Amino acid sequence: MNISFLPDAKKIQADAGGNLLSIAEKAGILIDASCAGAGKCGKCKVKITEGNPGEITQAERELLSENELAAGYRLACCVTVQSDLEVVIPTLHGGSTRKKKMTRLPDGFQPEERILSVFGKVPKASMKYQMNDLGRIAEAFQKSGLRPAPGLIRQLHQALEASRGKVTATFYKDTLLNLEEDDHTSQCFGIAFDIGTTTVVGMLWDMHTGQITDVEARTNYQSIYGADVISRIQFCNEGASHTEVMQQKVVQCMNDILEDLLSRNDIEPGHVYDATIVGNTTMSHLVSGVHPKSMARTPFAPVFCSAQNMQADRLGLRISPYANVFLLPNIAGHVGSDIVGMMLAVRMDSLDGCHIAIDIGTNGEVVLTKNGHMVTCSTAAGPAFEGATIHHGMRAAPGAIESVEITEHAVSIQTIEDLPPIGICGSGLIDAVAQVLDAGIVENSGRMLTRDEADKAGISPELSRRLVETPQGLSFVLAYREGKDDILLTQQDVREVQLAKGAILAGIQTLMKNLEIAEEDLDSIMLAGAFGNYIRKESALRIGLFPRISIDRIFSVGNAAGSGSSMALLSDAERKHACEIAEKTEHIELSMNMDFQEFYITAMSFE
Amino acid sequence: MNISFLPDAKKIQADAGGNLLSIAEKAGILIDASCAGAGKCGKCKVKITEGNPGEITQAERELLSENELAAGYRLACCVTVQSDLEVVIPTLHGGSTRKKKMTRLPDGFQPEERILSVFGKVPKASMKYQMNDLGRIAEAFQKSGLRPAPGLIRQLHQALEASRGKVTATFYKDTLLNLEEDDHTSQCFGIAFDIGTTTVVGMLWDMHTGQITDVEARTNYQSIYGADVISRIQFCNEGASHTEVMQQKVVQCMNDILEDLLSRNDIEPGHVYDATIVGNTTMSHLVSGVHPKSMARTPFAPVFCSAQNMQADRLGLRISPYANVFLLPNIAGHVGSDIVGMMLAVRMDSLDGCHIAIDIGTNGEVVLTKNGHMVTCSTAAGPAFEGATIHHGMRAAPGAIESVEITEHAVSIQTIEDLPPIGICGSGLIDAVAQVLDAGIVENSGRMLTRDEADKAGISPELSRRLVETPQGLSFVLAYREGKDDILLTQQDVREVQLAKGAILAGIQTLMKNLEIAEEDLDSIMLAGAFGNYIRKESALRIGLFPRISIDRIFSVGNAAGSGSSMALLSDAERKHACEIAEKTEHIELSMNMDFQEFYITAMSFE
Repeated sequence: MNISFLPDAKKIQADAGGNLLSIAEKAGILIDASCAGAGKCGKCKVKITEGNPGEITQAERELLSENELAAGYRLACCVTVQSDLEVVIPTLHGGSTRKKKMTRLPDGFQPEERILSVFGKVPKASMKYQMNDLGRIAEAFQKSGLRPAPGLIRQLHQALEASRGKVTATFYKDTLLNLEEDDHTSQCFGIAFDIGTTTVVGMLWDMHTGQITDVEARTNYQSIYGADVISRIQFCNEGASHTEVMQQKVVQCMNDILEDLLSRNDIEPGHVYDATIVGNTTMSHLVSGVHPKSMARTPFAPVFCSAQNMQADRLGLRISPYANVFLLPNIAGHVGSDIVGMMLAVRMDSLDGCHIAIDIGTNGEVVLTKNGHMVTCSTAAGPAFEGATIHHGMRAAPGAIESVEITEHAVSIQTIEDLPPIGICGSGLIDAVAQVLDAGIVENSGRMLTRDEADKAGISPELSRRLVETPQGLSFVLAYREGKDDILLTQQDVREVQLAKGAILAGIQTLMKNLEIAEEDLDSIMLAGAFGNYIRKESALRIGLFPRISIDRIFSVGNAAGSGSSMALLSDAERKHACEIAEKTEHIELSMNMDFQEFYITAMSFE
Repeated sequence: MNISFLPDAKKIQADAGGNLLSIAEKAGILIDASCAGAGKCGKCKVKITEGNPGEITQAERELLSENELAAGYRLACCVTVQSDLEVVIPTLHGGSTRKKKMTRLPDGFQPEERILSVFGKVPKASMKYQMNDLGRIAEAFQKSGLRPAPGLIRQLHQALEASRGKVTATFYKDTLLNLEEDDHTSQCFGIAFDIGTTTVVGMLWDMHTGQITDVEARTNYQSIYGADVISRIQFCNEGASHTEVMQQKVVQCMNDILEDLLSRNDIEPGHVYDATIVGNTTMSHLVSGVHPKSMARTPFAPVFCSAQNMQADRLGLRISPYANVFLLPNIAGHVGSDIVGMMLAVRMDSLDGCHIAIDIGTNGEVVLTKNGHMVTCSTAAGPAFEGATIHHGMRAAPGAIESVEITEHAVSIQTIEDLPPIGICGSGLIDAVAQVLDAGIVENSGRMLTRDEADKAGISPELSRRLVETPQGLSFVLAYREGKDDILLTQQDVREVQLAKGAILAGIQTLMKNLEIAEEDLDSIMLAGAFGNYIRKESALRIGLFPRISIDRIFSVGNAAGSGSSMALLSDAERKHACEIAEKTEHIELSMNMDFQEFYITAMSFE
């Protein structure tokens, strides 16, 4: 049987008859279960979204509410596997303060109160004021030319009748988005999404105050069909309905994020009146239900680049059915609206001088501006920095090595939440490579010394004995573990880092050559995304991830793509601005670019 | 069992076990069956849209195609009734030339080519022209700012690939409505609907040439829930889902009209790119799925009056899913968009002088203009002129008495298609009343003479013996029939005509008083609708249906509501114009109007 676990998008093979909680535990998937599977604590609650989880047990009837049972919730400890299942594990709350901080809006940004909820009294019609409902609403709220959102007109009379005319009306310009009895003016929200290949982030905003309410992230549910965009596209190629499946997966992920955000802030879905989306071009296509096949073959011309407006209910998004969903514009097949969002957030087009912005996600997109002249490219950096091709690589989760320091005689590591190390995440990887380079354990060519060579080179025995031959080839032990495999940095890992960082550096150099910029002209390098936030700049400079500029000119700009999505959510001016940026930015395709080929060869060196 | 027959909307009680063809025949519903029910000719094809028609017989398997069987088609002669059924009888074609002529557009009207289908070649993307599909389409067809209709974006790539870029693109302004392989530029249509309480008319237009392609009419399928708007509203009040039922019925009727129009002109539903609707305010609400309850109680304030735009697929209309449906604005609860359509068609707002336009349908709406100052009212004329409250009343169908002439010694009648008389339609009724008045058989007070009184008054015996006492009271025989009841004009019929014509005349007088117009100021009276087309003006003047102006100032203007719907279909300027007209026209509510009460008393007289 295939058991898919969401939101982590892990796929497990299990025998029929197995217990779902045990299967999850064996696979290393954390489900809270304080009674250890005795069917008493009710904590191992999961939602079965596909497949047949069998009869509901007595314990489940006692521990779960009727609503939960109706929604497909079960206790993992009570489910015996008898078919393929898709299992959604409710996320553990908290930790959103850090996420909220990641969503910084630039100084001077002005939210527009685009969506307005107003409480007022609509007078009754009379023989002397024989005005229709919609006309009276328009007059009461002083909105001439008022248009109800499609379908809303069916609800107007009911709302007026139920409340004797005391209603909250919600508007976007002259469009009436809602009419409901009583005062709900404090309940006017919007959601900005950043759809990454790996992670989907939802940022809930109060549309009146322009303040962030909450943030939630989940692994993109599409991940069960592959880690990168290419494998997602391949999946779409394999079946006529697969593009639709992919669309539904990402929307389900967005809906589960919404469910988390709304339930813990006690907000009704119908009070979320607007949505924006950024994502790479493939994600933009998939969320729109458009087959992304052209992104996987030359000339990488997507189906669309321009901004798209969709209706929330057609998209399947569980917010107000009258909400509009704005998908920011893309620039090219491999430079998506997430990059436009980033450029919006860092005010890329209004910066004086020469500046680079880099978003290192599953790909590595680079933008360079020279006094408002903007060029961009996408480097096939691959998901090395997200841990995908690294032997002990993992995402930045508890237990991941996030920093490494190598002194003459010792290696010290730090893990997220100070747990025993279980792998290494992107920032830890760059640290590790920088440190082994500085320690002389790896040459600038990328070659790792053998233990003998290390000893001959005068490296201390405490370090050199960490150089070991393993089934993965020559490796350096980053952390010893009792009773488990040691955590390694393999020769192959170093090669992967070389390929990835070389692509990014060569991409930058190609853009710089295009705009005739020398290293000394660079005023700043901005690093976007979680990776950019946690990376140690010294280490990034040491491995040559980007041109060697003064460290105080390198800035982390947080989840800039998400910030851009949020800005568009809160401002029509920024939507227009995003379209202008996408229009103005010149895209340079690297796959057949001679400059890039040349730069790439030397950029792989750690020199 | 209840058997409902569409499109005539007849409801029949039948016993279980009865044969459907026999039941229909007994009820006077024409189903073509040349083998007389032997199951051999296959002509008595009907579509069962609700209920269980039982097992499919061998004869049906042989005579019907698989597609037909799948679509619910059966042979009436093979169906044994065993449950309530809804039966749609395919309409007999032809007769549309007369209908086409009814849809006259005013001189000087300019169709706008709002929807354009253009054939062209979209170049392939290349590494040197790495433009996205949508961008290349925009460039190839020179449409900057091109937006695909919601959902269409999913089809673009497929269309370009299938045809090597040779495509027909269909636009409304900057919106792309379709992209398809090969040249379909001759296939660009729009549909204008006129939704009457009794009859729904669909007018199919070629959007390129601005010429009418075909016209089709069907009884409004809502009719099975009552003949007038009040009974429809009552039905909506009786169940939470009933408004939706009513919406579906009228949309099914529109779809069946479309099916007729499209199949006989060999047009694909996807090539109908635009739609407009006029109808009275209750019909406007029902087609939009809005509960019309407020139209049945004071102050008769509808939910909306302004023009509405809907998406065809949300409405359930089987045309291009990307089509917009434009519902013309209403003026008041009982003056709907059909009247706005009429005003548009007769150029009401730009006429010099004083003019009246009347639409006598199930209600009687009147508009009066004095140099562009327009007032309107709705008179509760009731459906007398449509035959509903008249003893032998019927719609203008074959066999209906359409004109009556009474000379000193004889009564001569004319029926539609010269068939033996089966009833009397509106124009015949007005003729009959005018003639009995002139013959002295009915007094100006509306009182019918008894045979004795007639004899005393010197009326010829040939006429006076037609005055008979019947179970319906005192009546005048219009036509003798062998073996069947004679066709009567009853005293009660005359009273019904008085009430109806009195309401219309008093309405006109109220409006005239409002604008301070005397009878001699009137420049014209325009009569809209089928009734207006076939009525004898002399007779209408004789019974005092409207002020006594010179007969050459009375004009029939055809299906003006339908013409207005068509003009809006073909022109954005006319859509704007319709909204201006609705905005400018003053509505006068008669139900509490003192002038109207006074006028009404005298207006009922035939003097």
